[in-house]
Amino acid sequence: MKFSSKIERCELSPMRKYAPYADAAKARGMHIYPLNIGQPDIATPKEFFEAVRGFDAPVLEYAPSGGVAEYLDAVRGYYHRLGHTDLTDANILATNGGSEALMMTMACLLDDGDEILVPQPFYPNYTTFVGLSGGKVRPIPTRAEDGFHYADRAKIEPLINEHTRAMLITNPGNPTGAVLTRGEMRMLAELAHEHGIFLVSDEVYREFSYDGEQMASMLEFREADENVIIIDSVSKRFSACGARIGAVISRNEAFMSEAMKFCQGRLCCPTIDQVGAAALYSVGPEYFAAVKEEYRRRRDTAYDMLMQIPGVICRKPEGAFYLMAKLPVDSTDRFQLWLLEHFSASGDTVMITPGEGFYTEPGRGVDEARLAYVIEHDDLVRAMRVLAQGIEAYNNR
Amino acid sequence: MKFSSKIERCELSPMRKYAPYADAAKARGMHIYPLNIGQPDIATPKEFFEAVRGFDAPVLEYAPSGGVAEYLDAVRGYYHRLGHTDLTDANILATNGGSEALMMTMACLLDDGDEILVPQPFYPNYTTFVGLSGGKVRPIPTRAEDGFHYADRAKIEPLINEHTRAMLITNPGNPTGAVLTRGEMRMLAELAHEHGIFLVSDEVYREFSYDGEQMASMLEFREADENVIIIDSVSKRFSACGARIGAVISRNEAFMSEAMKFCQGRLCCPTIDQVGAAALYSVGPEYFAAVKEEYRRRRDTAYDMLMQIPGVICRKPEGAFYLMAKLPVDSTDRFQLWLLEHFSASGDTVMITPGEGFYTEPGRGVDEARLAYVIEHDDLVRAMRVLAQGIEAYNNR
Repeated sequence: MKFSSKIERCELSPMRKYAPYADAAKARGMHIYPLNIGQPDIATPKEFFEAVRGFDAPVLEYAPSGGVAEYLDAVRGYYHRLGHTDLTDANILATNGGSEALMMTMACLLDDGDEILVPQPFYPNYTTFVGLSGGKVRPIPTRAEDGFHYADRAKIEPLINEHTRAMLITNPGNPTGAVLTRGEMRMLAELAHEHGIFLVSDEVYREFSYDGEQMASMLEFREADENVIIIDSVSKRFSACGARIGAVISRNEAFMSEAMKFCQGRLCCPTIDQVGAAALYSVGPEYFAAVKEEYRRRRDTAYDMLMQIPGVICRKPEGAFYLMAKLPVDSTDRFQLWLLEHFSASGDTVMITPGEGFYTEPGRGVDEARLAYVIEHDDLVRAMRVLAQGIEAYNNR
Repeated sequence: MKFSSKIERCELSPMRKYAPYADAAKARGMHIYPLNIGQPDIATPKEFFEAVRGFDAPVLEYAPSGGVAEYLDAVRGYYHRLGHTDLTDANILATNGGSEALMMTMACLLDDGDEILVPQPFYPNYTTFVGLSGGKVRPIPTRAEDGFHYADRAKIEPLINEHTRAMLITNPGNPTGAVLTRGEMRMLAELAHEHGIFLVSDEVYREFSYDGEQMASMLEFREADENVIIIDSVSKRFSACGARIGAVISRNEAFMSEAMKFCQGRLCCPTIDQVGAAALYSVGPEYFAAVKEEYRRRRDTAYDMLMQIPGVICRKPEGAFYLMAKLPVDSTDRFQLWLLEHFSASGDTVMITPGEGFYTEPGRGVDEARLAYVIEHDDLVRAMRVLAQGIEAYNNR
């Protein structure tokens, strides 16, 4: 019995291979600083738990397929405060996290053999969502030396062909932390509009922009109303990853109708988590200011300490909570295994995410790694010292 | 800009068309008895809400992709009590309801052009899950006169061809309420094994079997270990539809590995709902006995009253909480619209689910309807009287 070619093209998480080595290191008494995870450590606002505890109904019923009214209202209110006051609940569908928003969008847009442009390096699960639809990622190349910036019309336009259905961007970026300027965003919107392709803009890190454009959204470029599809989520915005509540947002009515077929097929998103997620949107601007300041401080520390390591290539990232860098090692994969098996900085070691998993072609990104700064500042300082010592010891082994 | 052929082949819920008519009827002051919904009215066990309220962690983190340990343990324990004591957590993946278990399974099994056998009439969302994978439903025909029973080797075997990847059954059945005998189950398992196809057994109504086989599962037929994939859910079992927690269960290791790729892609199911779902499995047998007795009583009432209507064709269904019947009307679709627009039994009317939505071919099931007995017994009695009066008045109009 065979499996579908679609699922066979997908891959298990590349990080799984390190788990047994990490377990063995822990069993030897090693402490591992996790710079490899995307799970924020910031406390989830208490509003979520209060709303969940306050849920009172004798029967936990199905929610409407498009979303619980109070959640849709909360998301709409958030976008109205951003200035998109024309949006109604009809422009918003509740999803099981940003993940389902992506899966749903790819299912609606891509057939077997269709292509979607994605700046590379990119979030590895994009490959799964695109692959399950039968489509194919066509990477837009970037370089560490340029801070992984990709918004260059001359670079993107030649990649568009008759199979191209969409462009998928992450802004602020994962794994790169790169943030588009308003001018770059406008150019991408115009490009999508001119070529009649969808622009799927994954903006789940919207609040986490430290230097340049603040709280930007592709929804601003109204000539591309029919092209733009926003992927959103409470996961990073409110440190509520386990709620699995996101949204797909678009002014393209035909798209929203197609996406509703998917929503009705899976019936609904969890009722109680939607109630909790709605309450999250009641937190005030002071919450975001504090979280952003904390991440900015960590970003500065991580970047400054990284750049003190001889041979590292990285441009200061402007957003999200990741750094992507070229490290002065032959292979970040071999380096990670060595860090777990053979290294100890007074009983400490560190985990990073080797770069290869963020590229479609084998052999790309072999000397790159993603670092996530979602651990406390003091731990981050220690982790970066351990990393610096590790690189030196690895190259002198 | 075009959409994928896969999503274009899917359809919006056929029930949507009645909503404006129902709203208009309500606005005129009519009371509508809902025999059209699959949302149980039985109270969700308090264990769910207590576990959810007791959840205490500063950060609502991602759960493991395969499921929260306590939920997997609870499901495993349940299956051990059913006698499947060899199952481990590795045979179980947590899913976003039975819906995602089905979507995941179809994504793993079906490519464009592949076929899956499904006894017809069937749950309409199967078309969406199969369609999103690019596959095609090949219906196994049944008749109301035979109680929609389909487990006939001579009828099924000729439908298997080189494109057939799987058979998908619902047992107890939705919309038919038909329950397989142990002998029929064994025959289907053997058939799948002999022909090297998967047997996807949707057993979300397992507890709701009133006459014949009790608590049966395709997991019993060990020669088909590699073929059998179970779709499960807490939705109906514990009247917890809004939790969106289900499971896919199989002894086929290769399948579980492929399914894990899907799970890792969407990261995880909601953390708190899994904790609540785990607690549901702690309810004792007295809960199931009481719920089953209540549904059995309603089934008997609904069936007995239905059969007093001249011209109705229905065999007493053995399970789930549905009846599927041929009604003595020219079209259950037109009848439903007429019930909402032109009928009143002292201010009452009734909604049913017209049969066409449960068939792939237009024109099939036009005089059939599904009735769900998920309303209180007294209301059910009144609803059935209203239905009988409605049929008489419709045919005398």
